[in-house]
Amino acid sequence: MHFASDNSGPANPEILAALAAANTGYAMGYGADLEMAKVTARIREIFEAPEAAVYLVATGTAANVLALSTLSQPWQTLFCSAPAHINMDECNAPEFYTGGAKLTLVTGNDKMTPDDLRAAVEGEETRGVHGPQRGPVSITQVTEFGTIYSLDELRALCDVAKSYGLPVHLDGARFTNAMVSLACTPAEMTWKAGVDAVSFGGTKNGCLGVEAVIFFDPAKAQEFEYRRKRGAHLFSKHRYLSAQMFAYLSDDLWLSNARTANAKAARLAEGLHSAGATFSHTPQANMIFAALPRATHQKLFDAGAIYHLWDGGLEGPPEEEITARFVCDWSISNDEIDAFVALI
Amino acid sequence: MHFASDNSGPANPEILAALAAANTGYAMGYGADLEMAKVTARIREIFEAPEAAVYLVATGTAANVLALSTLSQPWQTLFCSAPAHINMDECNAPEFYTGGAKLTLVTGNDKMTPDDLRAAVEGEETRGVHGPQRGPVSITQVTEFGTIYSLDELRALCDVAKSYGLPVHLDGARFTNAMVSLACTPAEMTWKAGVDAVSFGGTKNGCLGVEAVIFFDPAKAQEFEYRRKRGAHLFSKHRYLSAQMFAYLSDDLWLSNARTANAKAARLAEGLHSAGATFSHTPQANMIFAALPRATHQKLFDAGAIYHLWDGGLEGPPEEEITARFVCDWSISNDEIDAFVALI
Amino acid sequence: MHFASDNSGPANPEILAALAAANTGYAMGYGADLEMAKVTARIREIFEAPEAAVYLVATGTAANVLALSTLSQPWQTLFCSAPAHINMDECNAPEFYTGGAKLTLVTGNDKMTPDDLRAAVEGEETRGVHGPQRGPVSITQVTEFGTIYSLDELRALCDVAKSYGLPVHLDGARFTNAMVSLACTPAEMTWKAGVDAVSFGGTKNGCLGVEAVIFFDPAKAQEFEYRRKRGAHLFSKHRYLSAQMFAYLSDDLWLSNARTANAKAARLAEGLHSAGATFSHTPQANMIFAALPRATHQKLFDAGAIYHLWDGGLEGPPEEEITARFVCDWSISNDEIDAFVALI
Amino acid sequence: MHFASDNSGPANPEILAALAAANTGYAMGYGADLEMAKVTARIREIFEAPEAAVYLVATGTAANVLALSTLSQPWQTLFCSAPAHINMDECNAPEFYTGGAKLTLVTGNDKMTPDDLRAAVEGEETRGVHGPQRGPVSITQVTEFGTIYSLDELRALCDVAKSYGLPVHLDGARFTNAMVSLACTPAEMTWKAGVDAVSFGGTKNGCLGVEAVIFFDPAKAQEFEYRRKRGAHLFSKHRYLSAQMFAYLSDDLWLSNARTANAKAARLAEGLHSAGATFSHTPQANMIFAALPRATHQKLFDAGAIYHLWDGGLEGPPEEEITARFVCDWSISNDEIDAFVALI
Repeated sequence: MHFASDNSGPANPEILAALAAANTGYAMGYGADLEMAKVTARIREIFEAPEAAVYLVATGTAANVLALSTLSQPWQTLFCSAPAHINMDECNAPEFYTGGAKLTLVTGNDKMTPDDLRAAVEGEETRGVHGPQRGPVSITQVTEFGTIYSLDELRALCDVAKSYGLPVHLDGARFTNAMVSLACTPAEMTWKAGVDAVSFGGTKNGCLGVEAVIFFDPAKAQEFEYRRKRGAHLFSKHRYLSAQMFAYLSDDLWLSNARTANAKAARLAEGLHSAGATFSHTPQANMIFAALPRATHQKLFDAGAIYHLWDGGLEGPPEEEITARFVCDWSISNDEIDAFVALI
Repeated sequence: MHFASDNSGPANPEILAALAAANTGYAMGYGADLEMAKVTARIREIFEAPEAAVYLVATGTAANVLALSTLSQPWQTLFCSAPAHINMDECNAPEFYTGGAKLTLVTGNDKMTPDDLRAAVEGEETRGVHGPQRGPVSITQVTEFGTIYSLDELRALCDVAKSYGLPVHLDGARFTNAMVSLACTPAEMTWKAGVDAVSFGGTKNGCLGVEAVIFFDPAKAQEFEYRRKRGAHLFSKHRYLSAQMFAYLSDDLWLSNARTANAKAARLAEGLHSAGATFSHTPQANMIFAALPRATHQKLFDAGAIYHLWDGGLEGPPEEEITARFVCDWSISNDEIDAFVALI
Repeated sequence: MHFASDNSGPANPEILAALAAANTGYAMGYGADLEMAKVTARIREIFEAPEAAVYLVATGTAANVLALSTLSQPWQTLFCSAPAHINMDECNAPEFYTGGAKLTLVTGNDKMTPDDLRAAVEGEETRGVHGPQRGPVSITQVTEFGTIYSLDELRALCDVAKSYGLPVHLDGARFTNAMVSLACTPAEMTWKAGVDAVSFGGTKNGCLGVEAVIFFDPAKAQEFEYRRKRGAHLFSKHRYLSAQMFAYLSDDLWLSNARTANAKAARLAEGLHSAGATFSHTPQANMIFAALPRATHQKLFDAGAIYHLWDGGLEGPPEEEITARFVCDWSISNDEIDAFVALI
Repeated sequence: MHFASDNSGPANPEILAALAAANTGYAMGYGADLEMAKVTARIREIFEAPEAAVYLVATGTAANVLALSTLSQPWQTLFCSAPAHINMDECNAPEFYTGGAKLTLVTGNDKMTPDDLRAAVEGEETRGVHGPQRGPVSITQVTEFGTIYSLDELRALCDVAKSYGLPVHLDGARFTNAMVSLACTPAEMTWKAGVDAVSFGGTKNGCLGVEAVIFFDPAKAQEFEYRRKRGAHLFSKHRYLSAQMFAYLSDDLWLSNARTANAKAARLAEGLHSAGATFSHTPQANMIFAALPRATHQKLFDAGAIYHLWDGGLEGPPEEEITARFVCDWSISNDEIDAFVALI
C-alpha cells in the first residue's frame, strides 16, 4: 500500500532486460552509442518531428533546467505556476542553470489560464532595462495536482506565449499519463499546440532514470550539448540511458504503463470517493489529492500505508479533514488498492 | 580490439544483477533508500572513516565539481595540473558549479610536485583583494597520463596544501586502479595522506554510472546536499545508484576489476614495448601512452582497432611516430590484446 | 516642475566642493584613501556601532545585491515584498550576485506585516532538500510606495526573522528620509531593531553616486570585499566616493536634505489633496502616489511637468483617474511646487 | 614622489568643472541624460564609427567584464596573456560575469604573438563537447608591462582571431597613452585592426571614474544594457559619468593628458637609466619596470617615494636588484621626477 510517488516503485522488467542486452561489448561513450541513434529516430517518429533534436539525461530536474536555460537569458523571467516543480521542488536549479533568471508565478492554482498568463506577461517588461525581461513559459502536463490541460487549453496558453514571442517548454515528467488520458498524439500535445521544447519523462513511468529533452527546432541543439556537458549531465556510458529509453518506447511499454497507472489511480479514486473522501482537484491521471479525516490517516499509517500528507500533520482533532497525495504507478496491484480502500 | 576508454566496455554482470535485485517493491527516493544506508556503512568501513559523509552521483564530472564547489568560494582559484580532467574535459563545469572560481594550472605534466604546487600557491594571493584567493588543491589519481602518485608523493602534496590551509580533493575516477597498484588501503591513499574529499569512481571500473563523493569531515555535508539537488544530480530512484555501488564494493568486485584492468594493460604494454613502441609515461595502471609509427596506426585502424591518437592524425609521413592512448578495462580479453599486438 | 525621481535633481554644492577639495595630490586607491578611514569612523559614530564594517559603492543596486549575497547562499530564498526594488527594478541582479537564489514575495503591498512574513517563511523549507532554503529578509525603508515602517513594525519584522535565524537587510536607498520622519536615531532604525546589514543611500539624497553598505557584525567583512571586487564595484579612485559620503555626513547635510525633501513632498501632497487628488498610500516621506483625472495629467504634461504615471497611460476616458508617482528631492523649490499645484 | 599608479593622482580640474557644470537642474537618469547623447556622438566621431554602440561605466573592470561577457558564452574560454588585468587583478570578475567561462593564458609575456595565440587557440576545442569552446581574444593596450603593440602587431593578432571566427576585445585602460605613442587614430588602433569591442579608459588618464565600452557592431547593444543593469553598473545619476567623459574628450584633454604622462615617464626612465637602473621591458607609455639595488629602494622609501616593488621585498641583500613599477600620470611635476632621480 505504497502511494508515495511514482518514483518509488520498481522499473519494468523490460527496462532491466534492455540494460542487460545493451551490456555487451564496446560502445562509444557520451551519446555516440548506436542505440542513441535509434532513440532519436524513434522519438522523431512518434512525435512526427523529423528534424527534432533529442537528448537524454538522467533526472527530470536536469531535463527541465537544461531545456529552460537553453531557451532563456539570465536577465529574463520564466513564467510558470506557483506549484510548478521548477518553482517548488528543484532547490533553485532553474536559477542556477539559467545564470540567475527569475520565475514569475502566474497562478497559485494547478493550471495557468490564458488570462493568468497574459496578465503575468503584461506585468513584466514594463520598466525598460530595470525589470527582468520576458522569457519562456513553462507548462507542467500532468500538473503537479494531477490534473491535465486539454489540447484547447494548451493551445490557448501557447497562443498567448507566441503573441509575445515567448518560447514554450512543457515539463512532461508525466507526459505519457497525460497523453493517454487525452487520447491524443505526442505531436498534438506538443508542437502542434505550440510547444518548443519538452522534458519527456521516463523515470516516473517505469524506467530507472532517463528523460529525453526534445527541441522541435534544432537551432539550439549545439548550445544544449555544451550546457549538458558543463552541467555534468553527459553520461560516459550513455548506452544505458539509450537502452532504457528505447525499451520504454518499444512495444508500447510507455503507453501501457501510463494507461495502467491511470487506471489504478481511477480505481483508487473511486474507492476513496466511495469511502467519503473529497478531492481538491479532480483526478485525471495517476495522482489524487483527497481529503480524509485525520483519524483515518492515522489508521491507514498504522496499517502500513505510505503516502504524503499535504496540508497538515497527524497532530490535531481526529475528525478534521487532511488532504493527502496518492500516486499510483504501473506496478501497484488491484489487491493492494482494494485492501487499502477496505481499510478506510 | 577496443582500447578507447574504460567507459566504453560493459558493466559487470554482478552490477546488472544487483540492479535487478533492487528492482522489487517500493523504495523511498532521493537517497532515503535502505540500500544507501548500506553503501554509507560500507564506504565508512573500507575507508576506516566512521564519520565520513557519503553521497552518490551518476557522473565523474558531477562528483568532481560538486566536491570542489563545496570546498571553495567563487573568488578563489583551484590548483590542479593542466592535463587534469577538471581543466581539460569538463567544459567549464568547475567554473559553473563554483560560481566562477578559476583554475591555476600548477604544471603541464601528469603529476604536480610539491615544488610546483608551492610555487603556484605562492604565485596567487599576492595582490590582496585584486587577485583570486587560494582555494582547494585537486589531485588526480590515477593521473590523466596513466601514472600514479606514490603515497609519499601524495602526502608531500597534501602537506604543501595544508601548510597554506588549503583543502585537498582527490579525483579518483580510477581510484581503485591506483590503490591496487600501490597495494595500499583506501585510508592511506586519502585521509591518512591529507585528502579531505574524494571522487570515488565506479563508472570506469565496471559500473554503469555511479560515483561516490566522500567527505572525511562531515561538516560540509548539508551544503553538499543542497548543491547536489540544485545541480539536478539527486536521483529520485536513487536505489539504482545505491545498488550499483553496493555490488561494486561487495565480494571485492572493485578490487578484482581494477587488478584485472591493470594486468591487461601491463600485458598490452609489454606487447607494445616488444613491438618497439615507446612510452611517454611509464604505464602504472590501466592506461598507456605509446608512440608508434603512423603507418602502424593506419594498419591497426584498418584492422578494426579502436583507440585515440593523442598528438597527431593519420595525415603525414608514415614513419613519423604518433602517440596514442590505450585504455584497458576489466572486460578486455587476453586474446584481443594478443591479436592486437600481433598486428603491430 | 520635475517630480520624476530623487535621482534626477542635482547634487548639493557641498558634495561638489568636497570632490574638488579631495582632488589634490596623491591618494592610495581601492579604499585605502585616508578619507575612507574618516567615513568609517563617522558612520560607526552615527550608528553607535564601533565594530561595524563599512564599505562604499556607487549604486544602490550594488549595495543591495552585494549585501544580500554576503548574507545568503545560492540555494536559499530571500524574503521581500513584491514591489521591492530588488524584485522589480534590478533586472535580476540579486539572482546574479547570489549565484541563483530565489526571491519569495511576501506581500503585494508596500509593507510586509509580521504575519505575512511568518506565513511566507513557513511556506518555504517544508520540502527538505527539494525546495529552496530560507534566507535573509530584505526590508525597504522608505518603502517603494513612499510609506515608512514604524520602529515597532520594523522590530516586529526583525523578530520574526530572528525567530527563524534569518538575517535582516535594510534597503535604505531613502534611509534618511525615513529616519527624519520617524525622528529616530540610525541605531534605532537598524541594529537596535534587529537589522544586520544596511544599504545606506546617499545618491537619492544629494550625492552624485555613493552608497554605504554597513554590517553591524564585521564577521562577513572579508567576504564582502571579495564580492565587491569581483562584482567590479571597487573604485580605484575611491577617494571620490569617500569624499562624497564624508561631506554628506558633515554639517547635517544628510539630515537637512531629507527634511527638506520630505517637507517639499508634504507641501506637494497638501496641494494635491486640496486639488482633489486621492492617495493610494499616505505619503510619509518624499514620494507621493496620487490619483488625478487623465485630463489633468494631460494638462500638466502639456505644461511641462515631468513625473511617472503608474497605472495607466494618456489614452482613455479623460475623466478616469490615473495614479502617478511624484518624488521631491532637496532641490525642488516651493515656487515650482506651487506653480504645479496651481495648474491642477 | 608618488609613482604607485595612474589612479592615485588627482583628476583634471576640467573634469571637476564639468561635473559642476552638469550639476544644475534636472536630468533624466540611467543614461537618458542629454549629455550622454553628446558623448555617443563624440565617440562615434573620433572613432569614425557612426554605428557604434557606446556605454559608460565607472570602473575598468566593469568595462572589461561586461564587454567580454557580451562577446562570449559560459562554455567558452577567453584568450589573454597571463599578466592581463582580467587574469591577475579582477578577482575572478570575468569568470563571474561570463557565468563561468575560463581564461586560456596565451603567454607569460607582456605581449601575445600571433604564433602564441594560434597555438593557444589550436590547443582548445580539440575535444569536442568535453573541453571549453573557443571564445574572444582580449588584448591589453598599453600592456600591463608598459609596452605597446604596434598596429602591425595588433592587426596580426586580430587576423589570427578572425581566422577562427573569434571576436577581439581591447582592454584600453590606458588606450590614449598607447594611441599617442603610436601616433595613430582611434580607428586604426581598433576596428581598422580588427577589434570588435573596446574598454576605453578615462579613469587612469585624468577622470574621477569613467570608462566607455564601445561595440563597433551594435548588434550586441541591447544585451549589453541588460548585462550592465543586472551587474549593478547602470548609474541613476548618469549625467556625472557623461559629463566626465565629454569633458575628457573635449579640447583634446584626453590627448594632452596622455602625452604629458608619457613624457613624464620618459623623463623618469631617462633618469633611472642614467642612474644605472635596468628595464625588464622597454618603457613605451607611462609605466616603467626598472631594477634597482635593494638599498636604493630603501633609501627612496625612506625619502618618501611611493611605488610598488614587483619581484621582491625590502628584506635581503642590499645590493640585490629588485624590479619596481613606476607609473606617471598627467599631474606629476618635472620637479618631483627630478628630485626623485636625484635621490638614486
